[in-house]
Amino acid sequence: MKRNVAIILAMLLSSFVLYAQNDSLQIRRIFNQILSNGMCYSRLDYLSNQIGGRLSGSVAAERAVKFTFETLKKEGFDSVWLQPVMVPHWVRGAKEVAWFKGKNGRSIVAVCALGGSCGTDKQGITANIIEVKSLQEVSDLGEKVRGKIVFYNRPMNPLFIKTFDAYSDAVDQRAMGAVAASKFGAVGVIVRSMGSNVDKNPHTGMMRVQADVKQIPACAISTYDAELLSAALLADKDLKFYLKMNCETLPDVLSYNVIAQINGTEKSEEIILVGGHLDSWDNGDGAHDDGAGCVQSMEVLHTFKSLGIKPKRSIRCVLFMNEENGARGGTAYANYAKENKLIHLAAIESDAGGFTPRNFGATTTEDKLRSLRGYAPLLQAYGIEEVLASGGGVDIGPLKEQGTCLIGFGPDSQRYFDIHHTAVDIFDKVNKRELELGAGNIAALVWLISEYGL
Amino acid sequence: MKRNVAIILAMLLSSFVLYAQNDSLQIRRIFNQILSNGMCYSRLDYLSNQIGGRLSGSVAAERAVKFTFETLKKEGFDSVWLQPVMVPHWVRGAKEVAWFKGKNGRSIVAVCALGGSCGTDKQGITANIIEVKSLQEVSDLGEKVRGKIVFYNRPMNPLFIKTFDAYSDAVDQRAMGAVAASKFGAVGVIVRSMGSNVDKNPHTGMMRVQADVKQIPACAISTYDAELLSAALLADKDLKFYLKMNCETLPDVLSYNVIAQINGTEKSEEIILVGGHLDSWDNGDGAHDDGAGCVQSMEVLHTFKSLGIKPKRSIRCVLFMNEENGARGGTAYANYAKENKLIHLAAIESDAGGFTPRNFGATTTEDKLRSLRGYAPLLQAYGIEEVLASGGGVDIGPLKEQGTCLIGFGPDSQRYFDIHHTAVDIFDKVNKRELELGAGNIAALVWLISEYGL
Repeated sequence: MKRNVAIILAMLLSSFVLYAQNDSLQIRRIFNQILSNGMCYSRLDYLSNQIGGRLSGSVAAERAVKFTFETLKKEGFDSVWLQPVMVPHWVRGAKEVAWFKGKNGRSIVAVCALGGSCGTDKQGITANIIEVKSLQEVSDLGEKVRGKIVFYNRPMNPLFIKTFDAYSDAVDQRAMGAVAASKFGAVGVIVRSMGSNVDKNPHTGMMRVQADVKQIPACAISTYDAELLSAALLADKDLKFYLKMNCETLPDVLSYNVIAQINGTEKSEEIILVGGHLDSWDNGDGAHDDGAGCVQSMEVLHTFKSLGIKPKRSIRCVLFMNEENGARGGTAYANYAKENKLIHLAAIESDAGGFTPRNFGATTTEDKLRSLRGYAPLLQAYGIEEVLASGGGVDIGPLKEQGTCLIGFGPDSQRYFDIHHTAVDIFDKVNKRELELGAGNIAALVWLISEYGL
Repeated sequence: MKRNVAIILAMLLSSFVLYAQNDSLQIRRIFNQILSNGMCYSRLDYLSNQIGGRLSGSVAAERAVKFTFETLKKEGFDSVWLQPVMVPHWVRGAKEVAWFKGKNGRSIVAVCALGGSCGTDKQGITANIIEVKSLQEVSDLGEKVRGKIVFYNRPMNPLFIKTFDAYSDAVDQRAMGAVAASKFGAVGVIVRSMGSNVDKNPHTGMMRVQADVKQIPACAISTYDAELLSAALLADKDLKFYLKMNCETLPDVLSYNVIAQINGTEKSEEIILVGGHLDSWDNGDGAHDDGAGCVQSMEVLHTFKSLGIKPKRSIRCVLFMNEENGARGGTAYANYAKENKLIHLAAIESDAGGFTPRNFGATTTEDKLRSLRGYAPLLQAYGIEEVLASGGGVDIGPLKEQGTCLIGFGPDSQRYFDIHHTAVDIFDKVNKRELELGAGNIAALVWLISEYGL
């Protein structure tokens, strides 16, 4: 009897070893394909350099839809289609102008309008500045901000090791600063850019508006100029700031999510979604945010096709429209999934830049998290250290209530807020190998889930 | 009795928890200091932009010695001194010129002489090209290479996940290609640059010479031009290549290792060395290679001083001279340590770029490796995934025979061979946070070893 048990154990063990070995080999094939014949880098080149910044509603966004749709169509996947979605159409207009006059004369500063902001009138506005470090401080000042431009100048805290934590900690100034200041009669808002370093590139990004609060012009100022302005205010608190912005919100525009699928051979009704967002801010080329996530998602399907892998479950690539200023694509997609009773077993979003891979993070049940953590050792040699107990993405977020396991791809975050939402989010800032290793890890995880479920 | 055991266990456990907690807090203090008040980034700015490329024997190398010595001196450490060392003095001379004439006319290509190569004569050389992929192929061709320029064109293999493995796999062409080709009468050597990507920057680096083999001019060609040349050879195998190089080896020059120490309070005779190399190639500014390692090593001492940490063991920063083309500084230092019977408990070298931290690697005994792995969880939140079972550095290598635990700091390697030994190894390619996090992890590890030994 003991011997029988031993034999059975040995058989189980060897089949397990074989199984793990085969998985390793398959994952190695996936990486080999991407590292030697991958398409993601050249596609990102096109998206960044031939199309460029592609804010929702823009001609460039339309071109990005066409390019990715046609590229996926040519690959001959089982289905490739467009999901219509109405998106906001905010436009920056002519470049912003801003300067202040202090004791040392006039200093021109680099600013950019925040997404969703109203413009100034044609003459621009001139007002005194009041510098604050928080929304609370504005409430405390109350009526003292009336007629002034509120200057939010709390830097991203460098002591957070992961830069996204520092971003979350600081971004309330950009998101809610204008509403908070307008309530007390401020005439404009300047927000220190959400950047990890001190440089001359202002970072745009979305701000909230509130129906019952008067809109006032709001812009981001480069971190370098924020320091300059703050120093100038110390010397002369009565300095005058001039701001002219030409942005406006036009009527909504018809746009699309771009979707492609390889059908599963055994459980085709179970979908594993992989995606990024196709829109980007207008000031850079949206190479990292989120061109990288789009071409990586496309690469997953391309890799399966190139290697002739027939997944057991269906693999779907979704390039979402309008993550940056409305998240309409993600919302529309989740509604459509709900209406059609689709089963999304897992959704993986890559929207943290095309940097070197470090982790995945999942918002899901303990059981599924355990399954994911069981897969992680297979990805360790390729840079995945761990599976964190939270993660996802703005676009896939609305699928949560349908029970989908939400997974965010986590590349190294140190460089992200040097380029995020700036004019230097360009192709040149993306490293080919880092981008490809990200695609490889995402493709490998998709394959593992398609093969073994969660 | 059982109760007593339980109490003792509880006490042990709580003191362990407390101990681990205090360590965590100390490490957090170290990172806070570096991330908010660190000096390494501004020092690297100076070293890269005010001094620049600092090949052994050059005026810039002399200035780098002076700058770092004075900087360390000003900090008031227990001792700061210079160790004299004679170094090779190879000079590039006027910029290299190279072109080939194929069916489509003349193409100028980007090359740079390899370190240690002889120059051409004043007229330059013109010869046919023979393309090979390995040293073996040259042996196989034998006399067929006579009178020709051998063109080594085996790329770094992209399938290696860690780029240093791909480098090791390809670098024999650069290191030994000239000797191998000269034995059979070749008149020159062109080596495809050791670069991960295809671009226009040639990568220099050291080549071996052999007393009984005639020296022939050897240069690296950019990966872009290597592709171009290879394609042109397919169309016209008789194409002529012209090469002019003005490099030469001058008599050895007196230079220095720069050394600073904070004495240990309890076991001052046990030294923990932390270092990088002060020399760099001449074509870039040596920002990553190895300005980063130098300023990180200096930062360790600066951090101890700033926080008032009195280490139990002595902490020594060594900035080695001449890693790139002779390793004379490392050799001289190990000799001096041996002669003076110094005890180097551990030596940590940072010479893999100032990128985001990923690991340490140690060449040491099982016991010491286990100790290091015991410390690693304390560094996990700061990016250290693991302690690998091999590691070290060229400069600290000679200390091995003295029983020193050799440790290499391992930042992410994906971007290193885009810039290594090229004109784009400049300050702009270094990210402040990545550099600082590296310094933080090295300082934390030094502190743990200084406190608890190995």
